[in-house]
Formats: sequence, C-alpha cells, structure tokens
Amino acid sequence: MKRLENIGERAAIKHIEKILRKENNSLGIGDDCAAIDLGNKYLLITTDMISQQTHIPPQMTPYQIGWFLVAINLSDLAAKGGTPLGLVCSFGLPKTTTEQYLTELTKGANACAVQYGTTIVGGDTKETTEITLCGTAFGTVKKNEFMPRKGTRPGDIVAVTGRLGKAGRGYYALKRNKKGNKLSKALLEPQPRLQEGHLLALLHTVTSSMDLSDGLSASLYQLQELNAVGFEIEKDALPLASGLNQRFQKKYGVDPYTLALHFGGDYELLVTIPEQKFEKTRQTLQKHVITLSPIGIVTEKKKILLIENKRKKLLQNKGYEHFKKHVF
Amino acid sequence: MKRLENIGERAAIKHIEKILRKENNSLGIGDDCAAIDLGNKYLLITTDMISQQTHIPPQMTPYQIGWFLVAINLSDLAAKGGTPLGLVCSFGLPKTTTEQYLTELTKGANACAVQYGTTIVGGDTKETTEITLCGTAFGTVKKNEFMPRKGTRPGDIVAVTGRLGKAGRGYYALKRNKKGNKLSKALLEPQPRLQEGHLLALLHTVTSSMDLSDGLSASLYQLQELNAVGFEIEKDALPLASGLNQRFQKKYGVDPYTLALHFGGDYELLVTIPEQKFEKTRQTLQKHVITLSPIGIVTEKKKILLIENKRKKLLQNKGYEHFKKHVF
Repeated sequence: MKRLENIGERAAIKHIEKILRKENNSLGIGDDCAAIDLGNKYLLITTDMISQQTHIPPQMTPYQIGWFLVAINLSDLAAKGGTPLGLVCSFGLPKTTTEQYLTELTKGANACAVQYGTTIVGGDTKETTEITLCGTAFGTVKKNEFMPRKGTRPGDIVAVTGRLGKAGRGYYALKRNKKGNKLSKALLEPQPRLQEGHLLALLHTVTSSMDLSDGLSASLYQLQELNAVGFEIEKDALPLASGLNQRFQKKYGVDPYTLALHFGGDYELLVTIPEQKFEKTRQTLQKHVITLSPIGIVTEKKKILLIENKRKKLLQNKGYEHFKKHVF
Repeated sequence: MKRLENIGERAAIKHIEKILRKENNSLGIGDDCAAIDLGNKYLLITTDMISQQTHIPPQMTPYQIGWFLVAINLSDLAAKGGTPLGLVCSFGLPKTTTEQYLTELTKGANACAVQYGTTIVGGDTKETTEITLCGTAFGTVKKNEFMPRKGTRPGDIVAVTGRLGKAGRGYYALKRNKKGNKLSKALLEPQPRLQEGHLLALLHTVTSSMDLSDGLSASLYQLQELNAVGFEIEKDALPLASGLNQRFQKKYGVDPYTLALHFGGDYELLVTIPEQKFEKTRQTLQKHVITLSPIGIVTEKKKILLIENKRKKLLQNKGYEHFKKHVF
C-alpha cells in the first residue's frame, strides 16, 4: 500500500490532477494558478497551505507567518502576470492560541496584501491541533498577457528575476543566530514579484513562466515535463544573493550554488524568452530597476544540464518536497 | 492573556475583521461570501477549513470528507444566490496517508463539485500532523440578485428551505450505529442549496439570506447583530426532518426541536422575505419541488423569542462554535 511519504508531494498532486482532469474546466491545472475564462480576461486563482511542522521555523513571528502566507499566494499570481483582486485566508489554530498571536498573524497578512495593492476580503478560523494556515489569492489578467508554464521552445533564453539563494542564506543565518537578523528576512518575509510579473506580461515576450518557490532545479524539472524540452544552465551566470561567497561557505559549510540551485523559497520568477526578444525585455525591466538575469538556454535534448568550467553535468532535482525528507 | 478558548470562534472572527476592515475593498466581510465588484456582477468567494479533530467523525469515509469539504463551500455561494465558477482545495495530510485515501478524498470532492455543475480547478497538498482540509469556492452573481445577510426589516417573514435537524438526527444515528446508515448521510454528505439560492435570487424578494451551517439559533443571532432587529420563531412551524419524532426522542434521549434549533450542519438556507411577497415566492419554489417554510417574523424589538403554546421565551444561542466546548 503506497503512502504519501513514499510517493512525495509532486506525485500526490499528479495523482489528484489525474482524477480531476476529466471534468476540469479551467486552463492551468498543474500551473501556478488556475485560469477561468471571463471573456477578455482570465480569473486567476491559487491556494497555498502552510503548517507549523513543515513551514514555520520557531523564530518566525506571527506577523511574519501572516506575511508569508499572503506573499506565497501573491507570488503565484505574479508568475502569471496577474493583478490581485483579493485574498481569503483560513487560520487553523490551537485553542490555546492567544488573541495577541491572532492579532499579529492578521496584521502581517494584511500588511503584505496592502503593500502589494490588494486586501484580505474574507476567511475562516477553525480549531486545529497544529497551526495550519491556508491562503487563496485571486486576480485577473488579460488573456493575451497570461504567462503560462507551458509554451517555451528550444533556443529560448532562461532567465530569473532578482537574486537566488536569499532564502537559503537566511535559513543558515537563522540556524546560527537563533533570533534571526537582516539576512533571515528574505526567508521569512518574501516579496512577491507582482511588479516584475506585470511588466513581463505587458511585453508579451515570455513563452513560459513560474515562480521559484520550490527552488530552481525542481522548477526546471517541472517546466521540462510540461514542455518536453531540456535546459542548459550556466553555473557562473546564476545571480547569487549578496553575502553568498567563500566566506559564507567557510562559515556555514554550505556551497552558495547549492542554495541558489536547490534551496527554494526565493519567490523570484523563472521565465523563458525568445533570444531575439530577450535584450529588449531585459532593458525595459532595467528601467524599472528590475534585474533580469539570463542563466541558460532551452534545448531540444530533454536533459537538464549544469555547465561549469565548460563541462556539462546533469543537474539534480533536489528541491524541497512535502511528505519526503528534506535534502538539507 | 486572552486565549481563543476563552473568546470562541465568532469573537475571533470579529477580532480579525476589525483589523482588516480599514483596507477591505469588498462587500461582505462578515457575510457568507466576500463580494468583489466585477462591473454588472459580483465575484463571490468563500473559504472553509475542516480538521480531523473537530469535523470528521471516525465513521466518515474519505470520499464523504471530500464531498463535505466542497458542499460546505458551495453552500455559502448558494446563500448569496451565486453560480459557482469553480473551487480550489488544499489537503493537509499526514505523511502516512495512503494513496487510496487521497484517491477517495479527491473523488468525493470532485463528485460533489460535478453534481452541482462545477469543478475543482486547482489546489495544494501539504504535510500536516492532523488531516486539515481547506476549500475555497468562487462564483458570480448579478448585482441585483445578490442576497446579503444585511437588509431585513421588521415585518418580514423568516423562512427556511427544506427540513431541519437532519444533521443532528444523523449524528445520533451514527453515535448508536457505528457504521452509519441512511440517516447519517444528511450529516456526512450535505447537499448545498444552489438551486434554491438561485431561484430565490431570481425572484428579488429576499431581504437577507445566510446558510444554516451553524444551526438556526446561532444563525438568527448573527442576523440580528447585522440587522438590529429581533425575531419571533414559532416552534410548531419548524419543519422537522422525517424521523424526528417522539420515538426518536425516546430512543436517543434528545429533543428533536433542540436539534432543529441548535445542532447545525443542515446547510439549508435561512431567508427573510417581505410578508406581501412571501406567498408568491413560496409558490414559485413549490413548482420546482422546493419547500420554503415560514417559521416566524422579524420584529422591531431586538430579542430572539421562541413561541411555544402561545408563550414567548428567549431563544438561547447555542450553536457549535470552534475553540469553545460543544454544547451537545
């Protein structure tokens, strides 16, 4: 008898999708958001659940937990080029939870929504043994601006917004300094890339897009499956977060590139763009002080390779996966 | 330091609403659904979380749990006159959960969605210590067909769809017969009143509407607060579920009217309708084989009274509330 700990989260999701696919009337099962036809627009909708055991380090304040819940849901809208209309949040909380905790949790969730131009319009609270929170974000995107996961072609440039390894860097900083510090902020209070997604969508140059919540390697493997292509990623081209250097490696005993490739939690956008349109796209984003870094190319050969010192090797698929043991 | 077990679920929700109210851009916080302006329509959105400890009797099959999750969310759309566009469902499951369990859970959720003309368009699975499921349903309603909780006036007729006490009857049947039976089906596989809500909305006669998930007494108290009115409910007019009779009372030692008034879980609709429009509304529903039973009137005096043998007494507010002890 197969249990979820044997098959892991992604196989579990595929299992669910198979059951639902027959009747499903939306674009986008298996995408960051479901997309429902509203005429000239899509209604985008996405949901994410977090629980104490697997998502919430003990140092995380209730304010940060609320922020995180909203941010990770908005990140999925961002990856599709969407503009949020609102969120609903369900809080499963133990009965011994203090009113103060609930206040801070709500304030954090509200602050993130408001910072990104939207609001929490409703929700639910229920009694649970373990803190379990579920957010659902919804928004719209013009049909011709929707950026699906599926659509990339060999020859496209693979690119990411911002910098990679921020969350991993924060995780190790937090392990060392129990109170957390500036470095752990990227892990605990991620910034959804709504502006980035919106600008990319307006340019109509993106052939596939997803957020990097699961880490770069896991995300590339997910894109590969949908698109029947491969990728060649240049290790030297990865835009490492500041502070991810030899000193960091010595101090924490972890390779910065491992964090950038596999850790997850960065909530940047991973996109593919046809080569001839890439430079203009990059320059337009640059005008808005947004960095778009090319990190590799899409290939016909269905392998995901990492190029290091001109040598190619297979990039392992090592992102975090629920129900399975964490690789770090 | 106040804890949720001291204040209860409804005070917790009010606490959250107070924090969110300033920025909230939707109609309907404190209503069954949030309502977002989409031009000539509202986008309705609602979310409900259920957890093993507080919602899931051990006899409930995973198929029924999935059904239940979808049904209770669709019920909130029904109460607003909405037509569903879809649902997203998040499953928080222990890692020892079997694939078979996940299959049945998904099939049950899907079956309920499909039976009511909609589909599950996306979701999430996460590892949790306790089974914790969160559904979000969304749909639309024409603006002039939206049935809010707020709007009733003294003199309106109070009415309910279908029959009351079905879920309570099922609960006691289940307590006695551990395997459950036909009677427990109403508790474990509730039927959202989407057709009822839709027909009522088309008639434009409803001045306030909500679903009866929390039970009649708790629902009346919630309506009272929003509308600054009172209610006089005729005990003899309550449409008891079949089998809720003296024999039932003798067998299970519980008063059928207590179940009809306080138990909750019936997922019928509670509406108010101006007196002069009531009979036509009732007759129109009757043509669709839907029973709408008048059970009392809305009063200016802000009390909720139960009339029994022409004597009025205060109706207690005894519905189930999370974080607090169950009254049954």
